[in-house]
Amino acid sequence: MKKSLKAGIVQHFYADDVEVNRQRNLAAIRSLAGDGADIVVLSELHDSLYFCQEENVDNFALARELPGDFTDFYGEAARDSEVVIVASTFERRAPGLYHNTAVVFEKDGSVAGMYRKMHIPDDPGFYEKFYFTPGDLGFTPIETSVGKIGVLVCWDQWFPEAARLMTLRGADFLVYPTAIGWNPEDTDDEKNRQRDAWITIQRSHAVANGLPVVSVNRVGFEEDPSKQTAGIEFWGSSFVAGPQGEVLAMCPSDKAAEKIVEIDLERSENVRCWWPFLRDRRIDDYHGLTRRFLD
Amino acid sequence: MKKSLKAGIVQHFYADDVEVNRQRNLAAIRSLAGDGADIVVLSELHDSLYFCQEENVDNFALARELPGDFTDFYGEAARDSEVVIVASTFERRAPGLYHNTAVVFEKDGSVAGMYRKMHIPDDPGFYEKFYFTPGDLGFTPIETSVGKIGVLVCWDQWFPEAARLMTLRGADFLVYPTAIGWNPEDTDDEKNRQRDAWITIQRSHAVANGLPVVSVNRVGFEEDPSKQTAGIEFWGSSFVAGPQGEVLAMCPSDKAAEKIVEIDLERSENVRCWWPFLRDRRIDDYHGLTRRFLD
Repeated sequence: MKKSLKAGIVQHFYADDVEVNRQRNLAAIRSLAGDGADIVVLSELHDSLYFCQEENVDNFALARELPGDFTDFYGEAARDSEVVIVASTFERRAPGLYHNTAVVFEKDGSVAGMYRKMHIPDDPGFYEKFYFTPGDLGFTPIETSVGKIGVLVCWDQWFPEAARLMTLRGADFLVYPTAIGWNPEDTDDEKNRQRDAWITIQRSHAVANGLPVVSVNRVGFEEDPSKQTAGIEFWGSSFVAGPQGEVLAMCPSDKAAEKIVEIDLERSENVRCWWPFLRDRRIDDYHGLTRRFLD
Repeated sequence: MKKSLKAGIVQHFYADDVEVNRQRNLAAIRSLAGDGADIVVLSELHDSLYFCQEENVDNFALARELPGDFTDFYGEAARDSEVVIVASTFERRAPGLYHNTAVVFEKDGSVAGMYRKMHIPDDPGFYEKFYFTPGDLGFTPIETSVGKIGVLVCWDQWFPEAARLMTLRGADFLVYPTAIGWNPEDTDDEKNRQRDAWITIQRSHAVANGLPVVSVNRVGFEEDPSKQTAGIEFWGSSFVAGPQGEVLAMCPSDKAAEKIVEIDLERSENVRCWWPFLRDRRIDDYHGLTRRFLD
């Protein structure tokens, strides 16, 4: 594992055109790798608009078989720029069986591993349970040349259990590709509370587990094709936190951004020695965590 | 359960005199109850200095049998002011067997329940493993006339598992009596990171579980009697967060404070309907949480 990691963040707007999105992502990957990034993290479902604003069977056409043109394209991007890439796609596993899947590419273009989103949201404007079967690959970090990466996706970020399990399986850092935004009709207070809660919960995973967290969101407004809602203002704010939860860098909430953030991976061990939470977990009394509710 | 709760916070300096501390606590309880508090929360081990700065057998003399003069005093305070009290003591359970124990008193002065601190810290200046056996009452909320209270103590605050288990057992809100502070020799940057991590992790429990959190710390400098360290500057900053993690009120980091914070307990259910995290927990894949490490 490297002692210091240059993480490249791609916070983009996306268009209703897979080829256009891919070419923009490719340009960002090349640019960040050219500036020294060891790893480039894209946001969730970065090849398309966030199609889950409506339940529409036509959108299954956006899904991709793995391996296939998705892995060909981003594998080539990784090999070409000699950079590790965390990418995200709508995976077609079998007819009628789809996942929200992150794919990690090694610098030689090979697939280092996959993670299928385990926690699937479903609320107005985010109809993911219609599209995605919950993942069945578990909470397993992906081994790469830049460290063991605990890749989790969007809704997973609200579940401390997911971050903890990645940590217990030896993750060096966590990565959250995400697609989250505001209902434009909400008040500014409500918007601020939501964005702040999203930052807080992910910083808390860094604190609880003594490791860095990289969270990458898309940005900008996307219409609801069904016109039932006012659409989504994706709030950007992609950020990196160190192992005390300290924010090392944050992108704007309303602009595209490509940023390299240097992460000191040795600091995690120092922080864990001072705050040895893993030493003191009461595993003898945690069995209730595998229950739905304890009534 | 009440729909709205007035929580009284007692953030005090403490002296090397149990009787003096008790009288000051009593005055604060009376004052807050007089101002309408439904519940008064004291900080951790509020009858003494934070004696765990050194390992000294003489300090076992500070421990109290339960029931005994501790429950007599604070039970009388609760009955006299008709207020629920969350108090904290060094419990002498048997010769050579001690706990760090929170006791919740009902408005009639009876003991509503006890919680023995489950996660025990031990680091320079906080030698708690010398004094306290880890609790054996589990993560069980305490039923009172103002709601089911998930009482946890200080070091517990760093463990998302504890907050989750209290939630799964039906806690309406969490309460953290605490005693945490800075090494005066640390840099301001380090101090800020520590305090911010402490606030962040507790706010995250509110977010992850959709319930309010009340955290009450002591304040002020206390010497290290062994002179091995520079002592502890307890950082106050007692606060209340709502169920989105929003900070409803915060006390200063360097001054005593008595404060009433109004908490809307109905808001928790609304927030949980919008952010239904309990719906989506992947309990089929959380079994690893009961393991020390997954290597």
